[in-house]
Amino acid sequence: MIHIGRPVVAAGRHAVAQTELAAAMRRRLEALEGTDELRKMVGFIYEHSSIVQRHLELGLDELEAREDWYLAVNEATMSLARRALERLFEQHQSDELDAMVVVSSSFAGFPSLSRRLQDGMGLRLDAPCYDLAGLGCAGPTHGLHLADMLVRTGAARRVCLLCVDAMGTHGESRVHHQAPTISQVVAHCLASDGAAAVLVSAEPLDGPGLGWEDCRLRSKLWPDSLGENDFTASADNQPFIAVGKAIRTRIVEELGPVINGPDLDPDTALFHPGGAALMRALAMANPQLAPSLAISSGVLEQRGNIGSGSVLWVLHDAWAAGRPLGPRLRLIALGPGIVSTMLCLDGVEVR
Amino acid sequence: MIHIGRPVVAAGRHAVAQTELAAAMRRRLEALEGTDELRKMVGFIYEHSSIVQRHLELGLDELEAREDWYLAVNEATMSLARRALERLFEQHQSDELDAMVVVSSSFAGFPSLSRRLQDGMGLRLDAPCYDLAGLGCAGPTHGLHLADMLVRTGAARRVCLLCVDAMGTHGESRVHHQAPTISQVVAHCLASDGAAAVLVSAEPLDGPGLGWEDCRLRSKLWPDSLGENDFTASADNQPFIAVGKAIRTRIVEELGPVINGPDLDPDTALFHPGGAALMRALAMANPQLAPSLAISSGVLEQRGNIGSGSVLWVLHDAWAAGRPLGPRLRLIALGPGIVSTMLCLDGVEVR
Repeated sequence: MIHIGRPVVAAGRHAVAQTELAAAMRRRLEALEGTDELRKMVGFIYEHSSIVQRHLELGLDELEAREDWYLAVNEATMSLARRALERLFEQHQSDELDAMVVVSSSFAGFPSLSRRLQDGMGLRLDAPCYDLAGLGCAGPTHGLHLADMLVRTGAARRVCLLCVDAMGTHGESRVHHQAPTISQVVAHCLASDGAAAVLVSAEPLDGPGLGWEDCRLRSKLWPDSLGENDFTASADNQPFIAVGKAIRTRIVEELGPVINGPDLDPDTALFHPGGAALMRALAMANPQLAPSLAISSGVLEQRGNIGSGSVLWVLHDAWAAGRPLGPRLRLIALGPGIVSTMLCLDGVEVR
Repeated sequence: MIHIGRPVVAAGRHAVAQTELAAAMRRRLEALEGTDELRKMVGFIYEHSSIVQRHLELGLDELEAREDWYLAVNEATMSLARRALERLFEQHQSDELDAMVVVSSSFAGFPSLSRRLQDGMGLRLDAPCYDLAGLGCAGPTHGLHLADMLVRTGAARRVCLLCVDAMGTHGESRVHHQAPTISQVVAHCLASDGAAAVLVSAEPLDGPGLGWEDCRLRSKLWPDSLGENDFTASADNQPFIAVGKAIRTRIVEELGPVINGPDLDPDTALFHPGGAALMRALAMANPQLAPSLAISSGVLEQRGNIGSGSVLWVLHDAWAAGRPLGPRLRLIALGPGIVSTMLCLDGVEVR
């Protein structure tokens, strides 16, 4: 059996109301010609996001004053990562870890985030570290699978999994030299900073925990979906972020075989809250998922879309709310590509 | 037993003489005040690199004309990755793969490199993909270990491992607004574009192959070494690259316990060629490694430092040269951090 403790979570340091972020976006667009129509739509898009507040690791004032966005986003990711690990290490000794898996799409270059954390947070220097990149919100399903394999094969006995993204800082760092598209404005209105961390262990951990017998990762790249998501830089070297409309219209059909498969229990299937429209579409088509999707929507409302920490944050909240988590736990996420992933944990026991 | 075929290798499209790259660096520095002394050192540093030529996926002229370096480096990494996979798929069917591991430090953002390749190269859409980032030259040791675990746990039966970096394109894209340090010039003189790919399989593959019983990854972060390597962006949002001097003075001591350990056979230990000074230091302290280090130095001389493809390229050349590869094969690399890693493959049989 492979064991985890309860995930710890950490939001970006600055909670900023969505109304304030809408005002900031309108203010930036005012400097650009021909954006009258777009400015009117900002209010509509931001209001319909169902997001109350988002979190930024670096404050809006600081971001607007800095030009070195590549370094600022790395710095935000690193700072948030440290806070999440500090919380984890309040409960568990960091020097008992013998491997680390870090999942982030917002840290770029090297030395890697994992090695920087290993150096600064008291981890053993002989612990191997794996940094998984480019997974967006599908990060934790891959990260947990990798941690499971490290323990299962005997490569490690206690692995720290950290999922951290500063997509909000990335988006708010952008200086718009051209009017953004609707797809870009939608992405800006979702992106937030957050992290979640959990220990994966060969033995039960102190405190509340959960164990599983089997772990399988299912993954599907949707055909012709690569253009639906973009998190890179623009041609003028500004941080770029976009999310397409087709995800919304395709999600019910793409997830249908997964949701209606024989081995999914709607009470123990947890969903990454990618956006309000996605949650509504899933709930309409699958009323049996309503209680679980309500947890997801709560995370979205209070945190925005935080990237790789997202579905672990949902697990954290479902656990705290006393939701059932076994015997067949499913973590379901959407990642850039568009990719839908499902981590299938079977034989789950909660302690 | 876990099996691999022979690695395929691919260099950046444009072979550029080191003398020409030295001239390009001097030309760039001429535009900056106070670089007279530094310009004289460029010749010395580049000549003493023992590198004859390096490879750039995008040509020097194109790079000097483009301002969107973030996108250019992604584009170069992607283009090189495709060429390596095309070579691999000349020998093996791409639709027989059921998982993919991509190791790159030079591709940033999402959709990930793996998903872009999956979409364009005929891979099954339900194959899970893992992108390992920030590993620099230590990438293949981690990548092979991950591929081994995917096969060993039954998560996949045939995994494509691709290691690809366009560090040369990154370095040559830089517009210097300030005089670089010596550490930066040294990094510029090493950085080159290259890739290597290999299949990792539960069954023996067609053609020449190699299999192993056991696979373990050893990894050690050197104390106080995080400042020795940097591959990010500068404060003025230009591509940044640096490599420190302490690696050279510490390598013999740091690798001593590994090299002189009881389970290392000097004939079947393959080294990442990080730089000429590193190879010389290792050869002086460990004459028994001379035949193996000669293969590594040959790769450095003709390819430069290509990042994550490096030690697989050495394996490719050692295999082609008829060097022994078993029964205890060791792949030894240095990654940013500084991290030394050793992949220990035991019970190796070559077919």
